[in-house]
Amino acid sequence: MAVQVSIPKGTRDFTTSEMSKRNYIFDNIKTVFKKYGYQAIETPAMENLSTLLGKYGDEGDRLIFKILNSGNYLNKIDEDNLNPEHIAEITNLISEKGLRYDLTVPFARFIVQNRSEITFPFKRYQIQPVWRADKPQKGRYREFFQCDVDVIGSNSLFNEFELIQIIDEIFEILNLKVTVKINNRKILAGIAETIGESDKFIPITVAIDKFEKIGLKKVNEELQKNGLSQDAINKLQPVLNVKRNTTESIEFLSEMLKTSETGLAGLEEIKTIFDYLEYFKPKSNVELDLSLARGLNYYTGAIFEVISDEVELGSICGGGRYDDLTSIFGMKDISGVGISFGADRIYDVLNQLNKFPNETEKSSDVFFINFGKAEELKCIEIANELRKSGYSCEIYPQKAKIDRQFKYANNKNIPFVIVIGAQELENNTLTIKDMSSGDQISIKNSELIDYLEKVQL
Amino acid sequence: MAVQVSIPKGTRDFTTSEMSKRNYIFDNIKTVFKKYGYQAIETPAMENLSTLLGKYGDEGDRLIFKILNSGNYLNKIDEDNLNPEHIAEITNLISEKGLRYDLTVPFARFIVQNRSEITFPFKRYQIQPVWRADKPQKGRYREFFQCDVDVIGSNSLFNEFELIQIIDEIFEILNLKVTVKINNRKILAGIAETIGESDKFIPITVAIDKFEKIGLKKVNEELQKNGLSQDAINKLQPVLNVKRNTTESIEFLSEMLKTSETGLAGLEEIKTIFDYLEYFKPKSNVELDLSLARGLNYYTGAIFEVISDEVELGSICGGGRYDDLTSIFGMKDISGVGISFGADRIYDVLNQLNKFPNETEKSSDVFFINFGKAEELKCIEIANELRKSGYSCEIYPQKAKIDRQFKYANNKNIPFVIVIGAQELENNTLTIKDMSSGDQISIKNSELIDYLEKVQL
Repeated sequence: MAVQVSIPKGTRDFTTSEMSKRNYIFDNIKTVFKKYGYQAIETPAMENLSTLLGKYGDEGDRLIFKILNSGNYLNKIDEDNLNPEHIAEITNLISEKGLRYDLTVPFARFIVQNRSEITFPFKRYQIQPVWRADKPQKGRYREFFQCDVDVIGSNSLFNEFELIQIIDEIFEILNLKVTVKINNRKILAGIAETIGESDKFIPITVAIDKFEKIGLKKVNEELQKNGLSQDAINKLQPVLNVKRNTTESIEFLSEMLKTSETGLAGLEEIKTIFDYLEYFKPKSNVELDLSLARGLNYYTGAIFEVISDEVELGSICGGGRYDDLTSIFGMKDISGVGISFGADRIYDVLNQLNKFPNETEKSSDVFFINFGKAEELKCIEIANELRKSGYSCEIYPQKAKIDRQFKYANNKNIPFVIVIGAQELENNTLTIKDMSSGDQISIKNSELIDYLEKVQL
Repeated sequence: MAVQVSIPKGTRDFTTSEMSKRNYIFDNIKTVFKKYGYQAIETPAMENLSTLLGKYGDEGDRLIFKILNSGNYLNKIDEDNLNPEHIAEITNLISEKGLRYDLTVPFARFIVQNRSEITFPFKRYQIQPVWRADKPQKGRYREFFQCDVDVIGSNSLFNEFELIQIIDEIFEILNLKVTVKINNRKILAGIAETIGESDKFIPITVAIDKFEKIGLKKVNEELQKNGLSQDAINKLQPVLNVKRNTTESIEFLSEMLKTSETGLAGLEEIKTIFDYLEYFKPKSNVELDLSLARGLNYYTGAIFEVISDEVELGSICGGGRYDDLTSIFGMKDISGVGISFGADRIYDVLNQLNKFPNETEKSSDVFFINFGKAEELKCIEIANELRKSGYSCEIYPQKAKIDRQFKYANNKNIPFVIVIGAQELENNTLTIKDMSSGDQISIKNSELIDYLEKVQL
């Protein structure tokens, strides 16, 4: 009997079928990134805790997985201090490294550390797992992949436009209909200014960010709780509770923000982006959404969020411009903009809509039944030729019951099975079975590649 | 001024240039794996310590990075017990998870845990980082990638042959000349039996394994230290100190092992593999090497090691057959065979021989100089067309000094730079500069794709 084995809660094994679906997503995303000149980097799973701590708030600090120092990790602790009451101090003394919590902070650290080798504007993508000691629940894991693409060292809005092109192209290839929502943190700051509550900018954005989820009434309650005057809340209503298309929103803001320099600057940025989109119309809907705020406070300009038009699953991609990311490591005034693709959510959307190509399920193009040594040698010969022409092939590694071998091919979703028995061996022929239709025909060995080309494998 | 930032010792950032070289290796390896029907799996970075501990010996247990439990991790400890003398006990109480130390044990755990979903024989590959709290030194890292390919659930020697084909094809594609050394643990067991020291099998293999490094004299000293009789050591001499080709080794063993059933079984296995290679001659040298032993004790049959013929750098790939890997988790009698590619070493060999294709250095195929808004729009239009034809393109994100823009293209090794200024814009032409020759010509926009095809970009 097998021992009961398990993996840590909130983590996952990825089986062959899950991996090929995940790689379908990642490979398509990477192909588009590369077409636009973005290049991969990778950073270590472990970072010094001094790099990670204090960057994600108190809650974030708690959720960082900490690694026990090697060797006699207790030797820095006075025995008197080894007391559960001093747990925070003890943690500092027994752990110096943690697992990365996201890709953003390691990216900022990477830029500062490798700045002499980097050509700016720096266009990079990074696809790696991150770890969070969050309570695991449906759709929330303790190990999950982030897939980030950023350009840093240029404040041109061309970059925002290019990222929208990239989003558009990726979801077109993945055959998903999406809406790209855009807003701008300067517009939000302008709104806070206009309603006379500039100092409440953060609670205003946090409340607005929840608009879609909790509705206007609760947003207003939250604003009140945060000390906004009734007058200010009244002035905010037309921002949230009127449906407008992008043109109408721009008109509305031109009026509302006319006394706010920051607000008008944000509006100009939005206009510039939509001017680009006027020239190069994306396949996706792109719209200005004044209720989009994005919680993260390092955003300073344009912000993005992408949702599926077909499945309600929340945001599947998001990001924005940040003007001061590397300043946490002392390198100031480097503006950047980036987005992050939610691989797990995209996976779920594709799965729900049954939009993974059949391709992703098959392990090989062609399978050879093994009837014994003499036939096997012929199969190897033919398989090697097929591989040279780019086909993937498997030969059953030993003689076995034919049912069992067909079952193997079937389980592995191999579309064509080739049978070479004694008779075929003598005649230099083979029988090929199309596993989806069940049809089989006998052909000469030399006709095989033509046959496979014809069936457009 | 930027803060001094760093990463944990023994870990690495991979820059864009390093990543594209690494991906060149991994992509080629994966392509070959897939051609033979091997499929990817992935397992979590963290495993339960109960899965990892006791599998790699005491030293291995010490080198596993342990993760501090989340929350109040001290709450399981009696205050009285919180004493540096009880460090082992304390570690058990404050840490339940560790980072994987290799891919082999997680693979065995994966098979046992997912056995109901797996089709056997199971052909999988796995390329993921592993972590070891080893003392960092040149060429030895605390985080490094392993790249394993295995077939499990079949004891047919066809699999050994197929792995040699895979090795051969991968190194041919990477343009590296290699020698594949083969031996068999049953032959080694047979030799131990023949010299009358069956019970010393492990120390004999460990000593033989060092033959290449420390030479015959020291091997003999070590054997003596391990209690081998002088008679046994004398009988072992002709195994090690006579150079033989494969045919000669087989003849020699047929004589030496004639009284050892195990030894002869190993010899038959070796002969079967070389029979395959007689039919399907690999490009690489493949030879029987009686001094190959491989330290790992889970190997039970064929063992492999691959060395570069061009650079002395030790083994760049190795593996073997194991008959009982999953039994550590209670699932018995599943034979498998696998090999592991040493990505860091292969990287070093390619680097030393300057054999990375130039391709790996370039970030894009084509770069567009940005002269301002009107020209930029034309550049976007042309770049989008090029991307549709499969080219990767970058446009400088803003107007900037032309020198600076050329420098950017140069730093990023982009082979072609396109200039569209006011004049070109008016005439629907562009100037394209070949960055390696310095040549530039003016062509019509519509001629661009033909031009790029002609220069075979």
